[in-house]
Amino acid sequence: MRSAMYSPRSDRGRAAADVIDAPATADFTKWWAEREAAGRFSVNRIPFAEMQGWRFDPETGNLAHESGRFFSIDGVQTRVHGVDDWAQPIINQPEIGILGIIVKEFDGVLHCLMQAKMEPGNVNTLQLSPTVQATRSNYTQVHRGARTRYLDYFVGRRRGELLVDVLQSEQGAWFWRKRNRNMVVLATDDVEVHEDFRWLTLAEVGALMRVDNLVNMDARTVLSCLPFWAPDKAGPAGDGSFASALARSYHCESVDGRAAALNAFGEILSWFIEAKTRCDWSARLVPLDLVPAWRRTADEIFDEERRHFRIIAVQVEAGTREVKRWTQPLLSPRGQGDALFVVRVVRGVLHLLVQARPEYGLVDLVEMGPTVQLQPGEDPAGLAEPVLRAVVHGEVGTVRYDTVLSEEGGRFHQALTRYRIVEIDEDVPVEVDDNFCWMTVRQLTDLLRHGHYLNVEARSLLTCLRSLC
Amino acid sequence: MRSAMYSPRSDRGRAAADVIDAPATADFTKWWAEREAAGRFSVNRIPFAEMQGWRFDPETGNLAHESGRFFSIDGVQTRVHGVDDWAQPIINQPEIGILGIIVKEFDGVLHCLMQAKMEPGNVNTLQLSPTVQATRSNYTQVHRGARTRYLDYFVGRRRGELLVDVLQSEQGAWFWRKRNRNMVVLATDDVEVHEDFRWLTLAEVGALMRVDNLVNMDARTVLSCLPFWAPDKAGPAGDGSFASALARSYHCESVDGRAAALNAFGEILSWFIEAKTRCDWSARLVPLDLVPAWRRTADEIFDEERRHFRIIAVQVEAGTREVKRWTQPLLSPRGQGDALFVVRVVRGVLHLLVQARPEYGLVDLVEMGPTVQLQPGEDPAGLAEPVLRAVVHGEVGTVRYDTVLSEEGGRFHQALTRYRIVEIDEDVPVEVDDNFCWMTVRQLTDLLRHGHYLNVEARSLLTCLRSLC
Repeated sequence: MRSAMYSPRSDRGRAAADVIDAPATADFTKWWAEREAAGRFSVNRIPFAEMQGWRFDPETGNLAHESGRFFSIDGVQTRVHGVDDWAQPIINQPEIGILGIIVKEFDGVLHCLMQAKMEPGNVNTLQLSPTVQATRSNYTQVHRGARTRYLDYFVGRRRGELLVDVLQSEQGAWFWRKRNRNMVVLATDDVEVHEDFRWLTLAEVGALMRVDNLVNMDARTVLSCLPFWAPDKAGPAGDGSFASALARSYHCESVDGRAAALNAFGEILSWFIEAKTRCDWSARLVPLDLVPAWRRTADEIFDEERRHFRIIAVQVEAGTREVKRWTQPLLSPRGQGDALFVVRVVRGVLHLLVQARPEYGLVDLVEMGPTVQLQPGEDPAGLAEPVLRAVVHGEVGTVRYDTVLSEEGGRFHQALTRYRIVEIDEDVPVEVDDNFCWMTVRQLTDLLRHGHYLNVEARSLLTCLRSLC
Repeated sequence: MRSAMYSPRSDRGRAAADVIDAPATADFTKWWAEREAAGRFSVNRIPFAEMQGWRFDPETGNLAHESGRFFSIDGVQTRVHGVDDWAQPIINQPEIGILGIIVKEFDGVLHCLMQAKMEPGNVNTLQLSPTVQATRSNYTQVHRGARTRYLDYFVGRRRGELLVDVLQSEQGAWFWRKRNRNMVVLATDDVEVHEDFRWLTLAEVGALMRVDNLVNMDARTVLSCLPFWAPDKAGPAGDGSFASALARSYHCESVDGRAAALNAFGEILSWFIEAKTRCDWSARLVPLDLVPAWRRTADEIFDEERRHFRIIAVQVEAGTREVKRWTQPLLSPRGQGDALFVVRVVRGVLHLLVQARPEYGLVDLVEMGPTVQLQPGEDPAGLAEPVLRAVVHGEVGTVRYDTVLSEEGGRFHQALTRYRIVEIDEDVPVEVDDNFCWMTVRQLTDLLRHGHYLNVEARSLLTCLRSLC
């Protein structure tokens, strides 16, 4: 049953050949093509029994590594007032990894050291990734591979000046309480640049954000936490452009005071707490064998309705990873997700319509998500508000950003999400319930100083929005 | 086997008769004596089988209410790298309650509306409590009792101006991911004062903080979140008094800039994340029947070594609660706990030695706790640092605060903690490991804007410290 997984598929967004045409600079295009040519990657699906070091626990049915490290596939059971509700498999990875970008000034312009990195679940093999992307098992060398490059800039005594350091969540629908350390460090010494790495300005990264499946999830979340990736200050009042409203949304509180924001910061925190209070269910890990309506065959774990996702196993051979060859499980969604921020200019300031969104695996159950977030295969007809359905179908609003981007390829198999930012005119009524709140870019940026406020899809979209500066 | 539980015991701190002598004003003393006289409370231990509405689930052995609401006694299992480690019973209460204080200005002085409230686990029946102290089941009237007084000031359209609104954790050793909404609202209208309630200034509450077992845990945590309960600004530099150093610790960053603090705010956040990253274990709920080395009899659940705590059942009859009569389980610790902040004046500014402390039941496993925190019965000989052992034994340092206070009497039976603040001279060396960090009162106050930074013992001690203003 082995089969190569990276056969070209026209419905999967742009292929690698398109990707390397798109970037702004010829230099980048050349480097990326070289990296693609240099890689020797193969990812093949295998039966679970052929995985090395992984086994199903006979008591629980959980799929885990025999070292007890890395991650495992457990079950999650949600309950409403003590009564069982939804259950599914979930990726349980308690340890905290590092997603880190080294930045450095050249001629007064900040550059990010980005990596061309292969992940087994990537739809297109290589994606543009942070300088360091390592689980703790990974960087403490449990797998006895080569030492993670540039790690010394992020841990230990030789660490550079920290510009960003915050724990952030990842997909609550697929991960159990996963959180990673998002870091940005400023280097002042000479940094030796390995051939898989390249300095790019924020403007260049921003341009690449508009290419399908290029800037990976880990890079997007780290970039979202940068407090100073900001548009130039707004021009004269009444300019009326989208760019001006975006600049005011970032700068408003430091320039004009809080009055520019529809809701004060304290009101936003209270709104968020109320949403958590309304959340009537709780979630707990259970043995995978106890998850009803999901079945396991020799090579997949799936729901009987075949509506959600599958757990599969792959064998990977790679020439440019710390370990040359390994096997692992992946979570494979069916179809493409949607993440969409509705934005609106109010009194000259861009506001985003933020949703308080419960997800089974989030540490505190509820985080702030995009206006619309649909899991792969989820029907937009389920959206209560007619305007939001119309926006998803492209019938209302001005599309400011529309690109398909990939979720974490180290755990998910070809998980793609269509990210959109759609501007609605002030005269279009949006009557949403208590789970929604209008916020400025400044307010979201301030919340990102702390973890567990913005979910990973909202953080990705914030980076998409900033790329429009 | 029924027995009255509130027989006088000389080793339990001051009795009610002492308490009512202590407060600053004769008015308070008179009111408190009246409240004690008016109460008709009896709390009697019963076998589990006599509880009404509570039952042991035949499949899991968990003790839960048949409505699925309130709370349950489950098991918690910790694991290190996937291998089972410590396990124990734990109180699982997923819903978010409200701990709220109404404040109002009279003649330019802020007053708090405090309540004389009975809880079944209180060592002395009545304690000084917030205006509102209600679980969600409680205030949505699942138990069909009377409506919670003053609730309208905290929820719904008629809510007052919010001065504090933040979700905070409670005891991670005994609660599974418990969090409550800590609120302070400013009233501007006339507030009708029921006989169980009384307006007290912050100075009066501060004085009462020095009375054993009077200000309850819920009042202490809400008061700790008040951003403006501050000492007057420091006098001329070089005053050298404790009060001056405390004032500088609160005001330093707004007066002299961050240089007054040993560690910048960003460094503190990074230190905290590193402590979380080092935490090698994870915790999950398991059926209570699967917790090894704990046994259940007709009237208690206990560990075979009888070192930790017991789960017992009580029947309560009360004249001044929403429900007149009920039964419930309580967690009964063996002995008294310790919570102690070591403080030191550095460059004229008081600093607290904060510990990053993992606890099984905390939402994100690690929060910031006191320098020393010992569970009831825990031996201080286990402290690695000799200076800390000497401080606990009272051999080193100047004691600034030393009072026994109670933990939540709604869930714990006579859980007492000795709270201390001990000042160490600059010439006493304190060599602690990476789990400790020096912080100012201002930095701790800023962290309290968000949940899941300071644990409940640290928050209690912050209120103790402020009472010294």
